[in-house]
Amino acid sequence: MGELKMLITLTTDFGSPYVGIMKGVIKSIFKDVEIIEISSDVPPFDIKSGAFVLYSSYKFFPKGTIHIAIVDPGVGSERKAIAIRTRNFYFIGPDNGILIPAAKEDGIMEIREINIDRIPMPVEKPSSTFHGRDIFAPAAACLAKGIKFEEIGNIIDKYKNLEFFKIINGNIIECEVIFIDRFGNLILSIGEKDIFIERGVELEFQGSKYYLKNVRTYYDVNRGELIIVKGSSGFYEISIREGSAKDLLNAYVGSRIRMRVI
Amino acid sequence: MGELKMLITLTTDFGSPYVGIMKGVIKSIFKDVEIIEISSDVPPFDIKSGAFVLYSSYKFFPKGTIHIAIVDPGVGSERKAIAIRTRNFYFIGPDNGILIPAAKEDGIMEIREINIDRIPMPVEKPSSTFHGRDIFAPAAACLAKGIKFEEIGNIIDKYKNLEFFKIINGNIIECEVIFIDRFGNLILSIGEKDIFIERGVELEFQGSKYYLKNVRTYYDVNRGELIIVKGSSGFYEISIREGSAKDLLNAYVGSRIRMRVI
Amino acid sequence: MGELKMLITLTTDFGSPYVGIMKGVIKSIFKDVEIIEISSDVPPFDIKSGAFVLYSSYKFFPKGTIHIAIVDPGVGSERKAIAIRTRNFYFIGPDNGILIPAAKEDGIMEIREINIDRIPMPVEKPSSTFHGRDIFAPAAACLAKGIKFEEIGNIIDKYKNLEFFKIINGNIIECEVIFIDRFGNLILSIGEKDIFIERGVELEFQGSKYYLKNVRTYYDVNRGELIIVKGSSGFYEISIREGSAKDLLNAYVGSRIRMRVI
Repeated sequence: MGELKMLITLTTDFGSPYVGIMKGVIKSIFKDVEIIEISSDVPPFDIKSGAFVLYSSYKFFPKGTIHIAIVDPGVGSERKAIAIRTRNFYFIGPDNGILIPAAKEDGIMEIREINIDRIPMPVEKPSSTFHGRDIFAPAAACLAKGIKFEEIGNIIDKYKNLEFFKIINGNIIECEVIFIDRFGNLILSIGEKDIFIERGVELEFQGSKYYLKNVRTYYDVNRGELIIVKGSSGFYEISIREGSAKDLLNAYVGSRIRMRVI
Repeated sequence: MGELKMLITLTTDFGSPYVGIMKGVIKSIFKDVEIIEISSDVPPFDIKSGAFVLYSSYKFFPKGTIHIAIVDPGVGSERKAIAIRTRNFYFIGPDNGILIPAAKEDGIMEIREINIDRIPMPVEKPSSTFHGRDIFAPAAACLAKGIKFEEIGNIIDKYKNLEFFKIINGNIIECEVIFIDRFGNLILSIGEKDIFIERGVELEFQGSKYYLKNVRTYYDVNRGELIIVKGSSGFYEISIREGSAKDLLNAYVGSRIRMRVI
Repeated sequence: MGELKMLITLTTDFGSPYVGIMKGVIKSIFKDVEIIEISSDVPPFDIKSGAFVLYSSYKFFPKGTIHIAIVDPGVGSERKAIAIRTRNFYFIGPDNGILIPAAKEDGIMEIREINIDRIPMPVEKPSSTFHGRDIFAPAAACLAKGIKFEEIGNIIDKYKNLEFFKIINGNIIECEVIFIDRFGNLILSIGEKDIFIERGVELEFQGSKYYLKNVRTYYDVNRGELIIVKGSSGFYEISIREGSAKDLLNAYVGSRIRMRVI
């Protein structure tokens, strides 16, 4: 068995056919790479949600994986296209913060601005609406193919930061919904390392109050009961056993959450 | 050409990013395996629907394929994690019946309870909400990598069974909707091997009666006409040519169906 | 590094598990091929939309790629199953026009009717509802495996054409929505090569009038403003910055559009 394939992952709000097109572009530049979709259905334009998806996923891939993440309402504007080398991975995407929570956790070594003169674009000049195809996919393919990280462009030392919103004041937590999964679980912007919730919380949401027990697993409560659990990503989640907390609370990504630990 | 890659398939109700995370875990343990999604959008918590998806798909993959199927409302409870060796395949998932219709059809050789001490988990201890990442993906990766089936855990002889609901009484059929596809076709829990429908059926559903011709193909009727066809999976389906039977009948997975063969 | 893998792409309205089943069939015939989904969620039965998806994507894949595209309301009828060899690619699908805009642009060399006696079907006889599994996937796998294009069936010289609707009369454009992406952008059936829009258009739609500026990028306008942009596929698109033109206009694939260039 020779050397193993490089991996590129994709985290976008693109849907089809844009994700497939990016795969074609990558394969046209370097065929011997494997591409895995982490998500193609990040809520449209929601940079924070994309940042969470990448943050909760990147570390489970082999070292050396190249992670592309694009939620890019500023495409075509002056925002930079960047590549980040961290301790174990590469990250490629727009300079709008989407890469930062993941990259920071892994340890940022170097950030470079992608120089479009150094990459083989699939079109004569980049479109102003689809840099996934014209810039980010080619840049990742070049890295996978073996160009040195230094060749991708010049080092920059300023970048757009992104932090998930949270204020903890004694036993009062203010945070936000940063992701809603397919089950309707509301993933919050606070985790066990921020505050330890033992028994539960009192949630105030849209004028109503709810008492949420902290349980280890959905099975510890009856169907239909609103609970708070430590999710698999390390963040707390508001959930309902075999139901949708999203539908019950009418919450959305970005909803502000106020809770009192009890 | 050397030895060909092992295949792992995924059938879950997980959506993104959970499926991508599982792929990362598998690749981190054993890179030289190919992963194919059969479905990531089984109706949430619907074990029967997941069982149908696996049952209708597994046999079309190469011998030796490792099929993971997870719809797992009991995650974190005492339900076992199991691996089944059948005549031609391996199946991995929770012990809640999801694997059984497929495994039984292929011929069960051996069922083992996955011993988490034998598999390299991606986290220190398994989460109580995401065994796809922490147990099932690593177990499948280990099998793909070549550990012996015996090493995955001890043999068990009891398992949770699952059968699709059907009662046939003369020309009266009672059954249920076990899957609804993207076109709105209602796949029923009875097939031609259960009962031969020649001309059609009289359907009673939610207080209304419908006469459904049995046709070979959608093209045999006009647009908008409700029909019954033998679907590609061998089960009967209630369909409308270029329309959604689901929307017309307001049916869902689990809907009980009563029909009289005529 | 030996010879690189062949690529097969999939563009369908199938959803799961049908796409996964096709992948299994392909892998069972020829394991050493790579399969990439361009789209599995073309609007059901919408041949034109499928044709657009293929047309806007095919050229970004490596030469020699085998593109399968299936939106097939006529499955089971007398419509032919065809394979097209173009200058750089192979196309496989039903003879209903879905392949034609892409194949024509690349340059049609030869069209053959797939002869089901020449391909290894996964079932004894083809189902009447799932030719993706029984005919198109096996045909593509055979091509990938190396059978000669001539062996797939006889040459045909007639095929069903498909053209996107457009009438340009001075500065009056009549066209249609041929695709709606995940952001709600309405992709129209006219491009810059049909007519050059410099400043903008006056749109008449469902009894209302709208003035749409032509901008280079979403960032050139405020949130919520309806605009017309040259999309990445070369077609014009009606868009809203960080919003859904589809929702605002209540448009759908097939909506007729009347615009006056101003």
